[in-house]
Amino acid sequence: MIQLKSAREKKITPEMKIVASYENLSPEYIREGIARGRIVILQNKLRKTSLSKLGKYGKKKFQPVGIGKGLRTKVNANIGTSSDSGNLGDEKEKLRVAVKMGADTVMDLSTGRNLKEIRKMILKKSPVPLGTVPIYQAARRSMEKGQGIKDMKAEDMFNVIEEQAKEGVDFMTLHCGVTQSVLNILEKNKRLMGMVSRGGTFLANWILFNKCENPLYEKFNQILEIARTYDITLSLGDGLRPGCLMDSFDAAQVAELSILGDLAGRAREKNVQVIIEGPGHVPLNQIEASILLEKNLCQETPFYVLGPLVTDIAPGYDHITSAIGGAIAASHGADFLCYVTPSEHLSLPQVKDVEEGVIASRIAAHAADIVKGVKNSLDWDIKMAKARRALDWKAQEKLSINPDTFRKKFMVESSLNKRKKEKEKACTMCGEFCVLKLQ
Amino acid sequence: MIQLKSAREKKITPEMKIVASYENLSPEYIREGIARGRIVILQNKLRKTSLSKLGKYGKKKFQPVGIGKGLRTKVNANIGTSSDSGNLGDEKEKLRVAVKMGADTVMDLSTGRNLKEIRKMILKKSPVPLGTVPIYQAARRSMEKGQGIKDMKAEDMFNVIEEQAKEGVDFMTLHCGVTQSVLNILEKNKRLMGMVSRGGTFLANWILFNKCENPLYEKFNQILEIARTYDITLSLGDGLRPGCLMDSFDAAQVAELSILGDLAGRAREKNVQVIIEGPGHVPLNQIEASILLEKNLCQETPFYVLGPLVTDIAPGYDHITSAIGGAIAASHGADFLCYVTPSEHLSLPQVKDVEEGVIASRIAAHAADIVKGVKNSLDWDIKMAKARRALDWKAQEKLSINPDTFRKKFMVESSLNKRKKEKEKACTMCGEFCVLKLQ
Repeated sequence: MIQLKSAREKKITPEMKIVASYENLSPEYIREGIARGRIVILQNKLRKTSLSKLGKYGKKKFQPVGIGKGLRTKVNANIGTSSDSGNLGDEKEKLRVAVKMGADTVMDLSTGRNLKEIRKMILKKSPVPLGTVPIYQAARRSMEKGQGIKDMKAEDMFNVIEEQAKEGVDFMTLHCGVTQSVLNILEKNKRLMGMVSRGGTFLANWILFNKCENPLYEKFNQILEIARTYDITLSLGDGLRPGCLMDSFDAAQVAELSILGDLAGRAREKNVQVIIEGPGHVPLNQIEASILLEKNLCQETPFYVLGPLVTDIAPGYDHITSAIGGAIAASHGADFLCYVTPSEHLSLPQVKDVEEGVIASRIAAHAADIVKGVKNSLDWDIKMAKARRALDWKAQEKLSINPDTFRKKFMVESSLNKRKKEKEKACTMCGEFCVLKLQ
Repeated sequence: MIQLKSAREKKITPEMKIVASYENLSPEYIREGIARGRIVILQNKLRKTSLSKLGKYGKKKFQPVGIGKGLRTKVNANIGTSSDSGNLGDEKEKLRVAVKMGADTVMDLSTGRNLKEIRKMILKKSPVPLGTVPIYQAARRSMEKGQGIKDMKAEDMFNVIEEQAKEGVDFMTLHCGVTQSVLNILEKNKRLMGMVSRGGTFLANWILFNKCENPLYEKFNQILEIARTYDITLSLGDGLRPGCLMDSFDAAQVAELSILGDLAGRAREKNVQVIIEGPGHVPLNQIEASILLEKNLCQETPFYVLGPLVTDIAPGYDHITSAIGGAIAASHGADFLCYVTPSEHLSLPQVKDVEEGVIASRIAAHAADIVKGVKNSLDWDIKMAKARRALDWKAQEKLSINPDTFRKKFMVESSLNKRKKEKEKACTMCGEFCVLKLQ
């Protein structure tokens, strides 16, 4: 049984129960959300059978993750190699840190030589769902045959999708909305940065060279067939996402979004779960409208946003530009935040970047959940406030989003001060003028 | 001549011209804004005469700074010692880094033994305006006499204000709104964290012990006399700012804000420039309302906010929780952001914390300026987008908010990759699949 079909038949699956219990909601709420297309559960069907026999993935067992209306805003961490950088050991460590810091899912964006090896490692080790962008592997394979991206056959793309589905990938980014009509609109409405989605650009190059429609659009039913078989959630990619503030919310972006809304409906007709991907670089005052438009054009399909980055001028700090945008986006209804790390625009993320990226996105997601009314969200803040009021540093450390950082910052000074802090229960910020001691 | 009086007499001062030129606006726009109380210029009158004879402050000469409607959102960095931590050398380095990273003002929040020495150093070295919280020095002095805060005389407070005014301090935080009536409201409407403003708490303790009205409220005219003499901008402190999300926007906070609006009007009647301080810990969906309320209750007096922090659970990352809140606040009209560093709630900031705090606040301010329509704001982003499109890494570095960080992150990998990056003009994120090379 697959989730959407079960939900429509009013059957509650074990995965719905797991998600409901995690979210502190009723299984019926989850079921209804899935039936209406407002909630998805990320889990390849094979995870339940053959794959689950592999036993423990890393230390924790694999857990299905729910995304959508009324649920906690989720955070994805992108890991993976490029042709220039990264190796199996590094990626293993990035996976470990991403999960430890609280990423709800990971995506393997490898485009390097060891692409398949990395994916298999993640599938084996990761307790959280795995997403991929299959066109990367198709492009890599084409390159290794000494050919260009434009030389791929449509079947090469579908073969990779099926190959990855059989391995157990839980969700896939497919740029089905990069159509000839959308590229025509792009051509007529020039952009400063053009296309910046990697998968989208691969397909655009292919379409323009081969003078054919995007196979992922034209043969969408073939994708649905695979997705339904393995209960893979489609993440309809935004190939036209803006690469700078100036390009935001333009005709090409909106035309693609409209197509994605249409495809999302078609997917659900075939009992395939679907989410929509969104921008990107977005001025702060366009974020709310971007979210509302997606919710309207796509019948409330869960929205998965990258950032958004609210300014272009802060490379090295794009986890912060994205935390600003992500918090605003999620507060207006975005369901799933793709992290952006401090190394965005500069280099492949290192382990420390993964850590900072996940934490920044989790802060954004949590700040939004409080005002979205996600169940029990504010409780965490109340507990922290009480621990602060009581000057209970041990409890504060335990409650903080990253206790390791808390400890380092609290104990930043000399050992004399450390002892003093512990004894006097005050931090060095105010010393003897601590307001909580004056109250 | 002082700024507000000049503005009302339709005279354009040299400072108005400096501010206008920096903001790319007409001197008349600045003058009118000052006359209406929507803009202030931070500069002690003595800076022009005796103090300016000291010549260069650090490397750059002292510059007056404008804050308010239509102007670039400004960023303040708090530095200074506590009784437990910090020394003259550290504070000198924090000042240097704060200014280098682009802080528009600094506040000396020292409460340690060397308080006066630190302030004199900053006045001598700083090219940006200096703010203080005089009650800290009064409290310190009382302590050094072996007395408590409650034992201060009202005159001790005014003496410190005058002493600091004569030294050249440009703006002062005074918690004039912590009145007996406000404390009664607080008493009736219990909070989780009580008061967390240090200056506010000192005064509350004094008021409750002495059973007298707050001298800074009762003898507000005496403050106005000093402020007018030296053209000091009053920063009316929010002693009742919430210390956790749960306490936000409550009766005591709003009662104090209403009093501050009244005092702001009285200050302007006497030709004293004034700004209002604001929270604090604020849920994301209350920020807009907080700003609108201040603008209404205080006749558009420039609003100076601390953060706001949109969640309590991220000690160690409160520069990020504040960047989220600050960007939203500024986009709705906050004029001046007080930075929050990663060490907030944990320890006195170190030099690196000052750097990260200033950058995070500047990102928030800039993201807001773009959508506030501050003149030429978006140009910076457009230049960066063009440099990205051209794969011009040198130009990107120069345009980035912190070129040192850009360089470190761009050159993070092996020297082989460095050479490759320079030669191929691509970063290791996508390597051979760089979309900008595929376009």
